[in-house]
Amino acid sequence: MNNSQLPSTLPETERTRHRRLREQGSLDRSELNAILEAGFICHFGVVIDGHPMVVPTVYGSDGQNLYFHGSVASRSLIASPEATVCVTVTHVDGLVLARSVFEHGVNYRSATIYGVPRLITDQEEKMAGLRCLTEHATPGQWDYARQPSRKELAATALLALSLEEASVKIRTGGPDDGDGPDAALGIWAGVLPLVTTWGEPEADPLLPDGIEAPKHITARSNTRAG
Amino acid sequence: MNNSQLPSTLPETERTRHRRLREQGSLDRSELNAILEAGFICHFGVVIDGHPMVVPTVYGSDGQNLYFHGSVASRSLIASPEATVCVTVTHVDGLVLARSVFEHGVNYRSATIYGVPRLITDQEEKMAGLRCLTEHATPGQWDYARQPSRKELAATALLALSLEEASVKIRTGGPDDGDGPDAALGIWAGVLPLVTTWGEPEADPLLPDGIEAPKHITARSNTRAG
Repeated sequence: MNNSQLPSTLPETERTRHRRLREQGSLDRSELNAILEAGFICHFGVVIDGHPMVVPTVYGSDGQNLYFHGSVASRSLIASPEATVCVTVTHVDGLVLARSVFEHGVNYRSATIYGVPRLITDQEEKMAGLRCLTEHATPGQWDYARQPSRKELAATALLALSLEEASVKIRTGGPDDGDGPDAALGIWAGVLPLVTTWGEPEADPLLPDGIEAPKHITARSNTRAG
Repeated sequence: MNNSQLPSTLPETERTRHRRLREQGSLDRSELNAILEAGFICHFGVVIDGHPMVVPTVYGSDGQNLYFHGSVASRSLIASPEATVCVTVTHVDGLVLARSVFEHGVNYRSATIYGVPRLITDQEEKMAGLRCLTEHATPGQWDYARQPSRKELAATALLALSLEEASVKIRTGGPDDGDGPDAALGIWAGVLPLVTTWGEPEADPLLPDGIEAPKHITARSNTRAG
């Protein structure tokens, strides 16, 4: 695993440079990490037969790499170790309702990572990557659930993607037309927030009586996600 | 605009055919429309300089086409009328916590659309598409806010993407290892739901006193989104 520290400022490459709405761009790696920590589903983009394919999938992050897993038969995963992928994680925080339709927008936090993923074959590294993935989505779950057998490990493809080449875009706050001519129109303007929370755990109907949900699960209920 | 009815069964093309986890695939166009109706942000995938680029963006749907807008200077939009794009809309409904790490998963609803977008230049069609986009994210807002001027229209690129070639994947319910050997381990299993709701409207601080948020905005608060 690559334990080298990545620079605290994100690089501006031909792909990650903010061309438009530059005020929404951030080069702060801590913002990248915060966006990645807040989620567990990304949109994984890969080129297959010359056309793009965008697949929602689970990820884990250790601050150096993103980890993705899937069946060894997965088309998007199999194709990607040879080619550049683009992975995007987005949190939608609300609708920005302006006086004019033209100024409408969305409050969001988004991270995009480019790179060529590495297929992990070393067993120890694979277990560490799967642990990262599992703990990222559900902290505490790796040690609570039954860990993968050798057969299950062999059926799982694990990819690592360096967080080196990444970009961040964030929009917060209200609409931008409060000090322009449209302010005189008497139209309400503001933000309608979108809030994502964890619900109450729903036990598997096949679960025998007397097995309570563990604290690391129940403690999440009614807390903010994303 | 294309007013022809699309078939109620989704086509199985080389790109949309469900290869794996076929039980999660659906060919029912009404499920596609339900997923599109429930959201307003997609991940728009396009190939630029040979590599994929995945951009979160707003969409609207009229059941025949998806509409996307952006600045006429936008790189992802400008490149896409010439090429195939892949657009994915995903709703994450919860974590599926199984007895074994291997059986963990996510409950979700996801739609993926492939096609070559069409740049809309006709003014009337452009206004209709922008209306669809605006009303999709915020029903009631097109007639409430100030509609685009000719200058604003000229600065906006609008794309339409046919919903002809689309696929749907849905996972619901609990974990799958309740009737296998891991059921004897005494490990809790079930689903931790993820719930997205609209919050209370936050007025722009620059808004003069006495302008109340309209009903089509306030009525959404505390209702489910996604």
